[in-house]
Amino acid sequence: LDEKDEAFIRQSLEGVNPADITALLYEFDSEECHYVFGLLPKEVDAAILNDLEEDVRVDFIAEFTPEELAKYIEYLDSDDGADILYQMSLKKREEVIRFIDNEEKASYILDLLRYEEDVAGGLMAKELIKANINWTIKQCIEEIRKQAENVQKIYSVYVVDDLGKLVGKVSLKRIILAEDSAKIADIYDDNVVSVETYMDEEEVAIIMRKYDLEAAPVVNARGKLVGRITIDDIVDVITEMAEEERQMMAGISADVEEDDTVWMLSKARLPWLIVGMVGGLLGAQFMGLFRGDIVLIPALAFFIPLITATGGNVGIQSSSIVVQSLANPNVFAGGIVQRLMKVLFVAVVNGVILALMVFGVVMMVNRNEPLAATVSIALFSVVLLASFMGTITPLILDRFGINPALASGPFITTANDLLGLAVYFSVAHLLYNL
Amino acid sequence: LDEKDEAFIRQSLEGVNPADITALLYEFDSEECHYVFGLLPKEVDAAILNDLEEDVRVDFIAEFTPEELAKYIEYLDSDDGADILYQMSLKKREEVIRFIDNEEKASYILDLLRYEEDVAGGLMAKELIKANINWTIKQCIEEIRKQAENVQKIYSVYVVDDLGKLVGKVSLKRIILAEDSAKIADIYDDNVVSVETYMDEEEVAIIMRKYDLEAAPVVNARGKLVGRITIDDIVDVITEMAEEERQMMAGISADVEEDDTVWMLSKARLPWLIVGMVGGLLGAQFMGLFRGDIVLIPALAFFIPLITATGGNVGIQSSSIVVQSLANPNVFAGGIVQRLMKVLFVAVVNGVILALMVFGVVMMVNRNEPLAATVSIALFSVVLLASFMGTITPLILDRFGINPALASGPFITTANDLLGLAVYFSVAHLLYNL
Repeated sequence: LDEKDEAFIRQSLEGVNPADITALLYEFDSEECHYVFGLLPKEVDAAILNDLEEDVRVDFIAEFTPEELAKYIEYLDSDDGADILYQMSLKKREEVIRFIDNEEKASYILDLLRYEEDVAGGLMAKELIKANINWTIKQCIEEIRKQAENVQKIYSVYVVDDLGKLVGKVSLKRIILAEDSAKIADIYDDNVVSVETYMDEEEVAIIMRKYDLEAAPVVNARGKLVGRITIDDIVDVITEMAEEERQMMAGISADVEEDDTVWMLSKARLPWLIVGMVGGLLGAQFMGLFRGDIVLIPALAFFIPLITATGGNVGIQSSSIVVQSLANPNVFAGGIVQRLMKVLFVAVVNGVILALMVFGVVMMVNRNEPLAATVSIALFSVVLLASFMGTITPLILDRFGINPALASGPFITTANDLLGLAVYFSVAHLLYNL
Repeated sequence: LDEKDEAFIRQSLEGVNPADITALLYEFDSEECHYVFGLLPKEVDAAILNDLEEDVRVDFIAEFTPEELAKYIEYLDSDDGADILYQMSLKKREEVIRFIDNEEKASYILDLLRYEEDVAGGLMAKELIKANINWTIKQCIEEIRKQAENVQKIYSVYVVDDLGKLVGKVSLKRIILAEDSAKIADIYDDNVVSVETYMDEEEVAIIMRKYDLEAAPVVNARGKLVGRITIDDIVDVITEMAEEERQMMAGISADVEEDDTVWMLSKARLPWLIVGMVGGLLGAQFMGLFRGDIVLIPALAFFIPLITATGGNVGIQSSSIVVQSLANPNVFAGGIVQRLMKVLFVAVVNGVILALMVFGVVMMVNRNEPLAATVSIALFSVVLLASFMGTITPLILDRFGINPALASGPFITTANDLLGLAVYFSVAHLLYNL
């Protein structure tokens, strides 16, 4: 590349899948990428631009003139084009759209930019194949030939009435298998699952997964067919949801990746560390109230990490089981009372087992009956309380429209640390003063 | 339902999507479900059987005779049929296969049962549309008409040579748009991404996501086309991967859901709780070594939760960032040394900020300089050490083929608790004995 041997680069990248070229480009800087772009066919460039990670792309598109960008966007589906435009300033957006020669594409993209990025309307592409219910197969195939130029992958042909309302779908397979003279009305399937423009992307993902759809038609509030969402976008939504959940569980407050700057990574991690720190400092002040007990029985201090760690572990286990049920609504049919009863049962089983084991070990090693009793009673209570907290917190968050996975993160650990300390020292204070 | 009003049930379920009926059936017991099954068309029953959660299905299929099951399986694609057979004893499996009238389907399924469930061979369906490279479009369409009966969704037509080797693909769209007299050889696309039978399902998911494929052809070691994997199966794989990761992060050792029995839930949660408990007991013994320090300065005990919680939080943050990079190999190009350098930078930034804040608060509230120095120096060291451990552990696990998400669970918290205590009491011992 350093020698800029055009012929060699062109030749070695010919026939290579754009996704592989994208992976390669991450190794180069923006200027080098720009140079390689100039050597490749425009449609390959467009595919690469679409493939790039969003935060890499944002730097990358700054290198191009609006006119160049418009050329690339013409090769993309309207939804992918709109995604790229979302990343620009309003001013640059306008300029790029002005340079798009294909009037239809430009109006499609303008239409899509009206929606929020994370609802069905922002996820859909305008390109799709539709057929009027009154057409014959022959007419339909002719129309498909016309429409198909703009549509990369067909999946189903959507059937609409004269008002443009979605009434059903028909697969390409059925069209190929049908007689030319048959009518769409005779062979179409009126049982079609559609989504509405304002639906949240996560809701769309759940629906498409439930019905195993590889494409879903999008209708507006009046039932008119306005676009379609394809499964590749949904795969991205599902992956993003999983990433978001991982970050919540890990207590990372922004969408960062390992290649972000030190400062961005620090900033994303600091808020929850500070929450944990404040919790720790509050815990320290609280224990100060029991200074007398610790001076008398210093061994009490030895078991603080056991109590807090168990509380944290039990809390995260409980909350993640609830989060899983919430993500998969079929699984658990019972109400909140049944749910809590079951959680408490599980907590009693595990609490008894753990408490007995700890009692045995402390008796054997420390030969101190009140200490063993204190630690094991406190441990049992903490298992119960942390189970309850871990179950109820994600349910409450979910009720208020907050992502319940937040409850599996440092939040629950910090709360359970404090709760655990309160229980432990209360039990100790009570038992030793009897 | 109690009154067994057949006509009413039949009528109200007519035209309802099978996925919705499935959701409904979770509310009933097995016997009631069996009754409803008898009233529905066989192909709807088959779709429902395919839709059911695996652990519900295992109980449910026990209600049916092998002959009944064989009838349902005939309506399913071979991969879905094989998935159901995987859940039976070898004996019942044989019986069911004997009752399958469609010879081709039976041989397909037998073929699939040879593969492990979690490799490409176990995920693929045998049903696909293939065309010989030497055919004309006309021949091809005729063949599609024949083959299409057995294939629910077509996606692409795969192009093979005379030996059955995969040489390319051609979309239905291109076939529809081409002249009847054209040859497949003229219009097919020889740039086709395929997977091999032995590939791990997670690898297949990564490939299909990278290239935005809605179906991938599967070839055997000799390059012969043997099946195809469709995106709906991959969506399931991605969802399962996310669930598995959530359970690892939460310290749940088996694939349980909220509706499993109390005993199963307890058993899945106990192992990591015991690991945490053993860690806590070891920590207690370790602190026993510093009994003298605690008696002299009981305030030392107050900050134990602060130190252990911060170590746990930092460790989980670091490991989950690495896990994310490992799941998404494009993101981070650097080697292990660069990785660790960066992590240490972030740790220094966050460590300094946290340590200064804690120093300030302890000085203000406790007005105790050596204590403030001890706690903040220990905190800084713990942030550094926990970052290092959190980064290195998933990398090592990944190197040994273990799921790196294991490192974001109770494992890292327990290790960091012990490490944190060691650092804290060593720093305290040193500072107070100066």
